Amino acid sequence: MAILQSFIEVHPDSHFPIQNLPYGIFKPQPTSSPRPGVAIGDFVLDLSEISSAGLFNGPLLNNSDSFQQPNLNKFVSLGKPAWKEARATLQKLLSSTEPTLRDNAVLRQKALVPLSQVELLLPVAVGDYTDFFSSLHHTKNCGLIFRGPQTPVLENWYHLPVAYHGRASSVVVSGTDIVRPRGQAHPAGNPSPYFGPTLKLDFELEMATIVGPGNELGKPVDVNNAEDHIFGLVLLNDWSARDIQAWEYVPLGPFLGKNFATSISPWIVTLDALEPFACEAPKQDPAPLPYLAEKVSKNYDLSLEVHIKPVDHKDSSVVTRSNLKHLYWTLTQQLAHHTINGCNLRPGDVLGTGTISGPEPEARGCLLELTWNGQNSLSLNGLDRKFLEDGDEVILTGYSKGDGYTIGFGTCSGKIVPAAP
Amino acid sequence: MAILQSFIEVHPDSHFPIQNLPYGIFKPQPTSSPRPGVAIGDFVLDLSEISSAGLFNGPLLNNSDSFQQPNLNKFVSLGKPAWKEARATLQKLLSSTEPTLRDNAVLRQKALVPLSQVELLLPVAVGDYTDFFSSLHHTKNCGLIFRGPQTPVLENWYHLPVAYHGRASSVVVSGTDIVRPRGQAHPAGNPSPYFGPTLKLDFELEMATIVGPGNELGKPVDVNNAEDHIFGLVLLNDWSARDIQAWEYVPLGPFLGKNFATSISPWIVTLDALEPFACEAPKQDPAPLPYLAEKVSKNYDLSLEVHIKPVDHKDSSVVTRSNLKHLYWTLTQQLAHHTINGCNLRPGDVLGTGTISGPEPEARGCLLELTWNGQNSLSLNGLDRKFLEDGDEVILTGYSKGDGYTIGFGTCSGKIVPAAP
Repeated sequence: MAILQSFIEVHPDSHFPIQNLPYGIFKPQPTSSPRPGVAIGDFVLDLSEISSAGLFNGPLLNNSDSFQQPNLNKFVSLGKPAWKEARATLQKLLSSTEPTLRDNAVLRQKALVPLSQVELLLPVAVGDYTDFFSSLHHTKNCGLIFRGPQTPVLENWYHLPVAYHGRASSVVVSGTDIVRPRGQAHPAGNPSPYFGPTLKLDFELEMATIVGPGNELGKPVDVNNAEDHIFGLVLLNDWSARDIQAWEYVPLGPFLGKNFATSISPWIVTLDALEPFACEAPKQDPAPLPYLAEKVSKNYDLSLEVHIKPVDHKDSSVVTRSNLKHLYWTLTQQLAHHTINGCNLRPGDVLGTGTISGPEPEARGCLLELTWNGQNSLSLNGLDRKFLEDGDEVILTGYSKGDGYTIGFGTCSGKIVPAAP
Repeated sequence: MAILQSFIEVHPDSHFPIQNLPYGIFKPQPTSSPRPGVAIGDFVLDLSEISSAGLFNGPLLNNSDSFQQPNLNKFVSLGKPAWKEARATLQKLLSSTEPTLRDNAVLRQKALVPLSQVELLLPVAVGDYTDFFSSLHHTKNCGLIFRGPQTPVLENWYHLPVAYHGRASSVVVSGTDIVRPRGQAHPAGNPSPYFGPTLKLDFELEMATIVGPGNELGKPVDVNNAEDHIFGLVLLNDWSARDIQAWEYVPLGPFLGKNFATSISPWIVTLDALEPFACEAPKQDPAPLPYLAEKVSKNYDLSLEVHIKPVDHKDSSVVTRSNLKHLYWTLTQQLAHHTINGCNLRPGDVLGTGTISGPEPEARGCLLELTWNGQNSLSLNGLDRKFLEDGDEVILTGYSKGDGYTIGFGTCSGKIVPAAP
């Protein structure tokens, strides 16, 4: 079968071929209202225009106003049949053999906006943001750093996907500057805590599930149906102030060391687009309790990279190369565990995976691990880094290579600006 | 000066005299749209009707649609001058000497609805819910139970108001049934964890700040201005499954042991109404860092009680008598600390105080403390209780006695229903 192609030219390295069609929210002009779009090559297809033109003509979407909204919450709440209908409609509309849009210059002019011109916004209104801790390599490294070699991985970790609640209000879209947080720290040896800008500012390389249909309070989601509740994934940078975190986190977990900002990519890549890259998840030993036992245990083979670009440098340096396939607890196990006590998820909720580290030292997903809590330095084109400096830009990216095309997330970036005076 | 009186008869023990005027959201009929109201005696005054009648005629509210909303978020976002204007307008309108409403039978008929007839809803749309850990007595008891007498209070606790993020989606209004959560537990001595309904279901007696105007990301709130960001308080029950919590909480804090439900009272009592009961907060030693040092360190002398009513019992038993004045970290310190790293608060956010225990054994704010983690039993009219049983109804209440009147919160209740099969 010939590969599906669009009438819009897409470079083979572009993250946004017709096989991808990730969803986002954008403004075509600074004064426009926010609206849904999908990325295709170097363009955004304006779904509010496609919808107004009556081109979503399948049974589930033909009378829906879900593409006339300032966020994707309504669309993601509709569930898998509507997502499949939208994907089929858009793949047909954008294909090289379909004249409807291709040969309609007026509609093309209205509906296809160069990516370089648009402002990208948060794709969803985030009701709740949860962050898991699902990479064994990350967990082990953190345990070695903070507790030493005796019990680097705590006993509960192998039995359940450990998680905590993060802050929804400070989830920001890629490109938002990150103000260096101030707070209390108490380094070992100091007689008392002090207050000041964090000295250990870090990134965390994560991805996150965007929840589709949620569940009612008191009604858990079965692990074998959990995939139906996942609309897609984003890149996520869980910015962390390690000195603040280390002092505050006992006994109730991270708070101000994390909640000053969390960046996500503007594009949500759907599970349908990622399906060609599905792979088996690592074997779990001990076997999980029945409510976490899956008929199919699925990860995705997705390359992840972190680049850092110091201020005034032309080039960025790659500091990490990891892969989503390293997750020990799957996305579906995370979601099912989250609801097993009756906790309700809502459309647009964000479930971070936790830092995704691989087994190799160069696959570690944060500076805490890469520099072993500042004991070593990384070299960025000759510049030393233990933790992030003001002016550093951190850029996450993720992609899978198909046969002649790339499915990617674009980037998730943020630049460090100095602390409040 | 004679005490302010309403033309509506209010019993001296009623929680809702003209001196209180707490805000809530209600439906006068099952089919009505939700709207703001204030409680007065045995009635709710419908603020959408008062607003439509043009009776909010002060400069800040006369053209506002903040009382035509399904929640109080817009009104609380307006800030202190608007809150004061609303309070002055409503106290005048309801006073015994003012004819406008008193002598207008048609408007009274529309705007005053018997409390017994209305459905009370969540007063705010909760963007984020944070829970602090601000009672020294509670912290010490938990430390003694879980870690023993060596370091019952961890070192950081005296330097900062410890907190964690809770779940916004499962904050429910008083009266909502609480489904017993299921989850993993791993009691000491068991070879491996098991799955099932929690055996250690608990309440936590708390109050919570309802945030008024928030702050921008990156812009902390000064502790001496923090009171301007607090609209008022509610009662809060932080339901907890102690066995689930004990197994899951290291190293990232409570998650499924808490996020299955959090109940709040339908009525938000404003700081203006509580001001007559302001008192000095406990002395803090060591002195807090400058960003937490307050010119005025204020608590409120507010009696708190927890009642439990077993199924088929006519009467409830009081199991705790505590007081808001026992908080070590003040509400304003909590709020300032929350934002010191730049974290943004939004109008309607909920900041729980943590369990409010007093120094006496009978002032302990949860069953974990009252039964010392199930080692002892409480007697409820002859029935033994270590933790909550199916059918138990837990009722929180809180009030302060003024000269001839009571300022109260009504109740915050919830009944335990059996776990999902």
